[in-house]
Amino acid sequence: MKHGEKLALKKLDPADTGGVSRHEAEKMLEPLNERLNELQALVNAAAVSSVLIVLQGLDASGKDGTIRHVMQQVSPQGCRVVSFKEPTEIERNHDYLWRVHRETPEKGMIAIFNRSHYEDVLVPRVHETVPRAVWTKRYQQIREWEAMLVAEGTLVLKFFLHLSKKEQKKRLEERERDPNKAYKVAPSDWSERRHWPDYRRAYEDLMAETSTEDAPWIVVPSDAKWFRNLAIASTLVARLEMEEKRWQKAVVARGKAALAKVPGH
Amino acid sequence: MKHGEKLALKKLDPADTGGVSRHEAEKMLEPLNERLNELQALVNAAAVSSVLIVLQGLDASGKDGTIRHVMQQVSPQGCRVVSFKEPTEIERNHDYLWRVHRETPEKGMIAIFNRSHYEDVLVPRVHETVPRAVWTKRYQQIREWEAMLVAEGTLVLKFFLHLSKKEQKKRLEERERDPNKAYKVAPSDWSERRHWPDYRRAYEDLMAETSTEDAPWIVVPSDAKWFRNLAIASTLVARLEMEEKRWQKAVVARGKAALAKVPGH
Repeated sequence: MKHGEKLALKKLDPADTGGVSRHEAEKMLEPLNERLNELQALVNAAAVSSVLIVLQGLDASGKDGTIRHVMQQVSPQGCRVVSFKEPTEIERNHDYLWRVHRETPEKGMIAIFNRSHYEDVLVPRVHETVPRAVWTKRYQQIREWEAMLVAEGTLVLKFFLHLSKKEQKKRLEERERDPNKAYKVAPSDWSERRHWPDYRRAYEDLMAETSTEDAPWIVVPSDAKWFRNLAIASTLVARLEMEEKRWQKAVVARGKAALAKVPGH
Repeated sequence: MKHGEKLALKKLDPADTGGVSRHEAEKMLEPLNERLNELQALVNAAAVSSVLIVLQGLDASGKDGTIRHVMQQVSPQGCRVVSFKEPTEIERNHDYLWRVHRETPEKGMIAIFNRSHYEDVLVPRVHETVPRAVWTKRYQQIREWEAMLVAEGTLVLKFFLHLSKKEQKKRLEERERDPNKAYKVAPSDWSERRHWPDYRRAYEDLMAETSTEDAPWIVVPSDAKWFRNLAIASTLVARLEMEEKRWQKAVVARGKAALAKVPGH
């Protein structure tokens, strides 16, 4: 998505699968998983960039599942997942970027934000807990902060998991029925559904305001989990491959510098 | 200082004492110390704002002494001092705002940064350790980041301790002679003096670039320690007093809210 471009989420089909069948998608995911593992190892060895992946989406849109299926071959040593829940008292007493900035990835690392600072332009708006004058300023602040991260060496990718209201209902009911998934049930699950149009509008605005060339939003149709996984994995691989040559050079340069310090070389 | 206004530090006398005598200055400091203590207690009780004080200046310009003498009556419970030394490896592997953002004060607190993110537009420039294209972008990033802090409830005040080269020499020699001060001696103390004009230019630029109405730079003539203390204490008190009424109202509102929860009220 381009900055300023407003997308009508209503017109995007959450069940879109890009003409790929489930079987094909699952076959295509495997080599992408392997590539992601290779590319992560390269990020780590080059140690000149870090990667920040932001996952946003309503309840049950598949953020946890994405992490499990897309990053399944990536070593946890090089990939850190940070889940941002309701802010603690200490977090609330700082600016909203404080807790996320602490968790940004260092050079060589991939960090995945399961929810993020974008919650602070969603919840305060929908539930009117922060003055409008305060949260509207945040769009620009977020744009600027992410631009700083990019300028200082971080790749920033933001995925919105686009789910239909109907599919959400199905997944919430599944959770309630399945004793192994019931722990995820929250009292807000159903009540938040009443705010569906508000959240949609809030997402449309935040994506229009904060999608930039260097830190783009990618809308992912997420009713079909297998398509969601494929779309995110292929986007990630394509983006990281753009840096591959640069990183490979950095690895070789690091190697030469290291050898130069070994006596006899 | 206003944004964009470039100050010729050379034309500002570091030995200026504003026509005040040492005896007068020391007498005036006492009630200011007390006022600072009262105002800090108010910041704490109101819990709607935080205060960030940045101290910058060359070696021996008196950053430690300022903290000792200006904040001497303020409770350490409500005032945290954070000294930023040479970055650690972990710090270097993040963007330069990462380590300072972690230490910004929460609502109700005063934080004093003894050196700060401004080192990252000084040292990389003077010693050419970071590409010019990278550190020049930082001015804007710093302006934007501080504007975000202000918008989210932090008061930001930045003091530059303006010292003469001659007075620095005197203080460094004193340190070397005094066994109780010698622990502060660093090998860079004398070598960095060769870069005096570079640092002066770098300070002039950074202050012109990052002084804003909401996060101003205050240049403090610092050859006379007693004048430096007086100037900083009175500036701080004047700034905090601008918020006094608002904070007093917040304290009363908090009190009413607390009492409303006590049965029988």
